[in-house]
Amino acid sequence: MSLGEKTLISRIRRGVPRGRGVITGIGDDCAVLRIPAGHQVLVTTDFTIEGVHFRRAWHPPEVVGFRCLARGLSDLAAMGGDPQAAFLSLALPRELRQNWIDQFMKGLLGLASSFNVALAGGDTSESPHGVLADIVVVGSVPKGWSILRSSARPGDRLYVTGELGGAAAALGEFMAGRKASPKDFPRHFHPDPRVAVGRFLRKQKLASAMIDLSDGLSTDLAHLCEESGVGAEIVEAAIPRARIGKKGNALDIDHALHGGEDYELLFTAHRGKHVPHRIAGVAVTLIGEITRSRRVIIRSPNRKGSPLQAQGWQHFRK
Amino acid sequence: MSLGEKTLISRIRRGVPRGRGVITGIGDDCAVLRIPAGHQVLVTTDFTIEGVHFRRAWHPPEVVGFRCLARGLSDLAAMGGDPQAAFLSLALPRELRQNWIDQFMKGLLGLASSFNVALAGGDTSESPHGVLADIVVVGSVPKGWSILRSSARPGDRLYVTGELGGAAAALGEFMAGRKASPKDFPRHFHPDPRVAVGRFLRKQKLASAMIDLSDGLSTDLAHLCEESGVGAEIVEAAIPRARIGKKGNALDIDHALHGGEDYELLFTAHRGKHVPHRIAGVAVTLIGEITRSRRVIIRSPNRKGSPLQAQGWQHFRK
Repeated sequence: MSLGEKTLISRIRRGVPRGRGVITGIGDDCAVLRIPAGHQVLVTTDFTIEGVHFRRAWHPPEVVGFRCLARGLSDLAAMGGDPQAAFLSLALPRELRQNWIDQFMKGLLGLASSFNVALAGGDTSESPHGVLADIVVVGSVPKGWSILRSSARPGDRLYVTGELGGAAAALGEFMAGRKASPKDFPRHFHPDPRVAVGRFLRKQKLASAMIDLSDGLSTDLAHLCEESGVGAEIVEAAIPRARIGKKGNALDIDHALHGGEDYELLFTAHRGKHVPHRIAGVAVTLIGEITRSRRVIIRSPNRKGSPLQAQGWQHFRK
Repeated sequence: MSLGEKTLISRIRRGVPRGRGVITGIGDDCAVLRIPAGHQVLVTTDFTIEGVHFRRAWHPPEVVGFRCLARGLSDLAAMGGDPQAAFLSLALPRELRQNWIDQFMKGLLGLASSFNVALAGGDTSESPHGVLADIVVVGSVPKGWSILRSSARPGDRLYVTGELGGAAAALGEFMAGRKASPKDFPRHFHPDPRVAVGRFLRKQKLASAMIDLSDGLSTDLAHLCEESGVGAEIVEAAIPRARIGKKGNALDIDHALHGGEDYELLFTAHRGKHVPHRIAGVAVTLIGEITRSRRVIIRSPNRKGSPLQAQGWQHFRK
C-alpha cells in the first residue's frame, strides 16, 4: 500500500498534543519553540535504519518507534537537560503496511507523551529500501550547566546507572536464531532514558562529566576519557551486570563491558561529593576512578590491571 | 572502502569552524547553542535520499552536499529567520569512495560557511543501500516575528522571488537521457536560499505569510491557502518563468507552475504595503492576490479563470 506524505503528516498531526514551549508545530516551514529565559538549547540527532539499528523480523514496530525516540532522549539525559520537542524524519518503502506505521508511531508518541515531549515537526519521504528514521530531540539547560564529556578530572569517581549488557544479550539471542522477549530483555526493547537521573545530577551539581552508554562501556568510557584528556581505572567486580529475566544469572562480563544500547548513564563526580546509591529509582554504582595517565585500565578479580580495549560496538549486519 | 564513523567525525570536525552561538559542537551527546535574548528557536529537518532526491549518476557529490543544506536554509528563510547551526545525519554504503564523501562535505560546508552557519553535530552510520542524509537547521527569530504559512488574509497581494521552473527543467533533461549543466541550470545544482530576502521582509514587516517553493508553486500555494483558510487568484502571464542558460527561451508554464525544488519564496503582503521590485538583489514579482473563496484560480492570457490543481511534485523514481 502506497503511503501519501500528506496522509502521514495529517495522521501524525492528529496524534500530537501541542507541547509546552511549542509556538508553531507541524505544518509550517520550521517549528517555532520558546526556550525558557536563561537557558541554552540542546540538540541531538540519531538515525534508526532498518538492517543497521533494527530488523523488522526481530523488532515489533511499536518497539522500533519507542527505541528511535529513546536514543535521542538518552542524549538529552546525558547533558543533564530537559527535553522539550522531537522532530521525526521518516522515509518508508512503498510496500509497508499502514498498520506497521501506526504501531511505530504509537511506540514513539507513547514515549514522547510520558516525557511531556511534543512531536513538533520532521520530514517524510518514500524510501527506495527499508525504513529510515532520523530523530532530533531539542531541549534546554540553564546557561552554563550542561554536563559535558570533557570535564572529568583525575581523582574523580566513576559511576554507572542501572545494569549493563542486557540490550546486547538480546541481540545475541536473535543472532543465534533464538527468540528474545520484551519481558526477559526490557532494556533492549524498551530502554528507559535516564532523564530524571541526569536532571538530578545537574540540579545537585553532583556530576563533573557524563555520557550515555549507547556504544558500550568500554567505548563510551574511552570517549569520555579522550574528550577530557584523562584516563580511568575500573574494577571488573564492581560493574553491575544485567540478568536475563528477573531471576536469571548475571550476564558474562563481556556483555557488560562491550555491549551497546543499554542507554544507561556513565558519569564522574568529584571524590568529595556524596552520590546516592539510588537516584530517581535507579541504582547508581561506583565502578572506578579517573586517572591522569590517559589509559583505561580494568582490574580483574585477582587485582591484576590490564588495558581495556574499546571494542567499538558494531551494529549487527544484514 | 569501508569508512569508520570515527574517521568521518574527525574529518568533519577538522573542517568545521566554531560558529557564533555554538557553545559545544560535535563531540558531545548534544550540541549546546546560545540563542539571542528575546528570540525564539526555529527548527527544520530535510531528507536527502539517494534515488529519491538525487542520483549519483546525475549529481556530482559537491552538488548533493550543497543542495542537502540549501533545503534546510530555505526553510529558515521562509520563516524570516536567521540560521545559526546545522546538524548532519549521514549514512553511507560501505563501498562509497572517500573522495565522494570529501566532495559532499565540501559542497555542504562551503554553503554553511557562506551563511555563517556552523555544523554543530549530527549522526553517522553505515547504510545498507545508498547514501542517506538528513539535515537539521536551527536558527532564531525575534519573539513573535516568524512569518507563518497560516497568516495570509483575503485581499493580500501574492509575490514570488526569482524565476520558476528551472530546477524541474534540469530534471526533465536528465530523465530524457540528456545532460544538464550547472551553467544552464544554476537553480537546480546550486539553489541559493533566500535568507536575506526573508530577513528583509521580516525586519520591514512586509510579509503577512510565507512559504518556500520546494514542491512547486501549485502545491505550495495550496499549502499556504489551506493553512490560512483562504483562496488565491493568480495571473498566468505574471508568473516569472526561468530560462535555460542566460539567453534561452523562457520555459513553458507547466514547469513554472508545478516544478519543484526552485527554493524561491512565495509570500503575501497587505495591499497597503509597498513591496520593492528587488530585495537583496533578487527580483520580486506580483503574481496575484489572496481571496476569501478557499479555491485557487489561475487566469490564463485570455482572462479566463480556471481552478489550479496542486500537481504535487513527485520526486523522480528509480
